[in-house]
Amino acid sequence: MKGKIYGVGVGPGDPELMSLKAVRLIRENNVIAVPGKEPKESVAYRIAAASVPEIAQKELVGIYMPMLRDRKLIEEEHRKGAAALEKLLDRGENVVYLTLGDPTVYCTFSYLQHILEADGYNVELVPGVPSFCAAAARLNLPLAEWDEPIHIIPAVHRTDSKLDLPGTYVLMKSASHMAEIKKLLAESGRDVSAVENCGMESEKIYRSADEIPDDAGYFSLIVAKEPHD
Amino acid sequence: MKGKIYGVGVGPGDPELMSLKAVRLIRENNVIAVPGKEPKESVAYRIAAASVPEIAQKELVGIYMPMLRDRKLIEEEHRKGAAALEKLLDRGENVVYLTLGDPTVYCTFSYLQHILEADGYNVELVPGVPSFCAAAARLNLPLAEWDEPIHIIPAVHRTDSKLDLPGTYVLMKSASHMAEIKKLLAESGRDVSAVENCGMESEKIYRSADEIPDDAGYFSLIVAKEPHD
Repeated sequence: MKGKIYGVGVGPGDPELMSLKAVRLIRENNVIAVPGKEPKESVAYRIAAASVPEIAQKELVGIYMPMLRDRKLIEEEHRKGAAALEKLLDRGENVVYLTLGDPTVYCTFSYLQHILEADGYNVELVPGVPSFCAAAARLNLPLAEWDEPIHIIPAVHRTDSKLDLPGTYVLMKSASHMAEIKKLLAESGRDVSAVENCGMESEKIYRSADEIPDDAGYFSLIVAKEPHD
Repeated sequence: MKGKIYGVGVGPGDPELMSLKAVRLIRENNVIAVPGKEPKESVAYRIAAASVPEIAQKELVGIYMPMLRDRKLIEEEHRKGAAALEKLLDRGENVVYLTLGDPTVYCTFSYLQHILEADGYNVELVPGVPSFCAAAARLNLPLAEWDEPIHIIPAVHRTDSKLDLPGTYVLMKSASHMAEIKKLLAESGRDVSAVENCGMESEKIYRSADEIPDDAGYFSLIVAKEPHD
């Protein structure tokens, strides 16, 4: 019988934010896959290892998930990654695939999942704490109250957005266009907070758009709320 | 010295989706607060008790958080709740306040947090898995890939929305207007899935707007994705 693959969120970075289920699945299964060529260098591995040290004794599999501009080339890599996982599943092994944050939110596992499901394999997703919930907690800031919508925008420079919808905006993956985005934020009149490298040693917190450096890193997350009295 | 209050998400329902940190904070502290008059009847308590049975021996405090239409009356109740917590904090006790899902996403703890912070108390938020991540995982459905935005709308009937923004819509708290919302969904041409009572025994899954019953319960969560080829 074919094995089953679990797409497991290990949460946003703090190893203590892993779920009991993530910990159990790592302990109970022998094959652990992570994104990255060198499994032990992957962020998801390091988070898991801090809470579940016995992971080091497991069969560790790195799945190369490059960020490339060429969709065709990416898809080829995804096919290779899925094929490597299918080989393990065909052996009858269950595979626990660890991923940063939550496996349904901008997660590279989704690409593998589509292929695996199309090929008839059984995929189960185990949710994790997404980065924006961790960032909001770190900022001590409710993302939304009452009936406020939340808009999570991964690349605001492509949406031609005026940030003028009601509710809260969460801006992710903004690093490469930060100067432009700071201008948008200033024009919006919103209350802006941001976290860079949330939960890591290099963490920085900003309490206005002005404070965010133009060269803020990839793991910067901005919360822009409607101004309240 | 005054104690500190932790606003701790216990996740969406499955006790195994609690974080290691939530478990540790319950174990290490003596005073556990939950929303509801009868602490042991609160959903957050029951989730926590399933993973941390020793919670039953703690000092349990129920904070009444009614859903009322009258904002003034609600605010009065929140003041009373905050006052009860402040009495405990003034004793020098830390308080672990447990809450369903994540404490920054439509969480009644936010109302208490505002009062406690204004009164000079130290609040720390501990993120949890929000309901929409659990629902998406249960549906085996990525909420968003690549650069797709996510719009979380807690009461779509108030937004006069055509559901025509790019990306994925998550509709919450829609139960009281389900017939109307099903019409909106049908007109949008989106791929619709829904979960009612995610993770509970009474859980139901729907794979189109038509399938969702007009009288679906309060804990119904709809994911409406842009149609893909």
